[in-house]
Amino acid sequence: MASLTYNELNVGDHAEVTKTISETDIYLFAGITGDMNPAHVNEEYARNTSFGKRIAHGILMCGFISNVLGNYLPGNGTIYMRQTVTFLAPVYIGDTITARVEVLEKREEKKRVLLKTNCTNQKGEVVVDGEALVSPPR
Amino acid sequence: MASLTYNELNVGDHAEVTKTISETDIYLFAGITGDMNPAHVNEEYARNTSFGKRIAHGILMCGFISNVLGNYLPGNGTIYMRQTVTFLAPVYIGDTITARVEVLEKREEKKRVLLKTNCTNQKGEVVVDGEALVSPPR
Amino acid sequence: MASLTYNELNVGDHAEVTKTISETDIYLFAGITGDMNPAHVNEEYARNTSFGKRIAHGILMCGFISNVLGNYLPGNGTIYMRQTVTFLAPVYIGDTITARVEVLEKREEKKRVLLKTNCTNQKGEVVVDGEALVSPPR
Amino acid sequence: MASLTYNELNVGDHAEVTKTISETDIYLFAGITGDMNPAHVNEEYARNTSFGKRIAHGILMCGFISNVLGNYLPGNGTIYMRQTVTFLAPVYIGDTITARVEVLEKREEKKRVLLKTNCTNQKGEVVVDGEALVSPPR
Repeated sequence: MASLTYNELNVGDHAEVTKTISETDIYLFAGITGDMNPAHVNEEYARNTSFGKRIAHGILMCGFISNVLGNYLPGNGTIYMRQTVTFLAPVYIGDTITARVEVLEKREEKKRVLLKTNCTNQKGEVVVDGEALVSPPR
Repeated sequence: MASLTYNELNVGDHAEVTKTISETDIYLFAGITGDMNPAHVNEEYARNTSFGKRIAHGILMCGFISNVLGNYLPGNGTIYMRQTVTFLAPVYIGDTITARVEVLEKREEKKRVLLKTNCTNQKGEVVVDGEALVSPPR
Repeated sequence: MASLTYNELNVGDHAEVTKTISETDIYLFAGITGDMNPAHVNEEYARNTSFGKRIAHGILMCGFISNVLGNYLPGNGTIYMRQTVTFLAPVYIGDTITARVEVLEKREEKKRVLLKTNCTNQKGEVVVDGEALVSPPR
Repeated sequence: MASLTYNELNVGDHAEVTKTISETDIYLFAGITGDMNPAHVNEEYARNTSFGKRIAHGILMCGFISNVLGNYLPGNGTIYMRQTVTFLAPVYIGDTITARVEVLEKREEKKRVLLKTNCTNQKGEVVVDGEALVSPPR
């Protein structure tokens, strides 16, 4: 597990995690959050949406980003301050998602770091895009 | 379950869901996302952080917001476009969190809706604050 | 549920449990242990390994053996002392695994019992082989 | 994630993961494996055993060892060949367990590596001890 301080981080540093999304992931996420939106857990309903089948919760992808931030870059001890996220494309059961984090900018005065955060699927399509602001471990 | 169209929504409309955060919620969230950050799953480590004990993943709170947006306001059929979130205070095992969503602004040209989204704990402290942009159900 | 004492056990006694391995089993096991090895949860990665697709965690099979030991032979009250295990073949999602335990030897002086423990798949291939040493219930 | 080849490994190299054991971990492990031994899931029964309360499945600890082997040392691509494990002390809900793996011996002819594998609790007591034999990633 990494734990990189402000001084150890450089613009361009990056890290990622990858996981194939299972029906289990979606159902457990639904169970924890109570988000039983039929787009996620009702195949009959989902068939008649523009997506054509059940899709994963977009916020689940943010969980993978949080994984990278808190465990790899900057790693343990990071204080998560802000996240912006745009949902660009649906994620289906069986898609393999890579969450990637890259240092965009170091903000000297308060020792904070701005990072590009996105998720892509196995076809290279960006499904989630955004930025995170963190205070790295001391 | 609600499903409110653009025309049915008014500035000031609001909805919320509430849940007491259990160790199970945190451990399952860690298991799904792979985010085994010691701040979440290692009590010995957490004792020596500024938080003093294990805390929930901030993104879990966003899952409650997603629940309100997709199931109550605007409800089923909502397309989630963008979320910004600021993490203001830690959430501990046993805290009771209310995720609240309120219509801030209707954007006529593309029929989109901006909503205030926040989470408060049982003491009324805002733990997570932010805004969501959605395209309501047709 | 059984609970067989040292005197009630005979060399050759055997018991087994069988389960079809689901993606859920693998994903939950990964979530509990934190073992998000891509061989288990990344289908794109797994396709390029010698296994060709995602495989179950070998230790999951030991969990089935522990089930037989603690619930059927010798059963409740058994103290699990030692396990040796050799991983012989991969287990895939959809495989039906039988964990089998058989009494090999009774060790008089400390009233311990040595058992053969293995797991086979639906084709009869031994995927896991080994031995357990236990102290049976009093 | 690490992926160390035979040549990159040295005797004495070590890695570890740590987790506080929750009731959730035990109940999910019981659910996956079917090991509903009352020592793990029946508090009334457990109160009358020598342990005094519910204990975790010993094999769960092996799952943490598998995590270290497959993700950190040697890491992704490792072929898990053999594990021996001795269960030395009970693990209770709330215990914080560290699984540690250390290279003991490099076996030239078949390029295999023998590793010491153990788990200790927050008091430093060794709860599980053993050895693993692996074929490191190419």
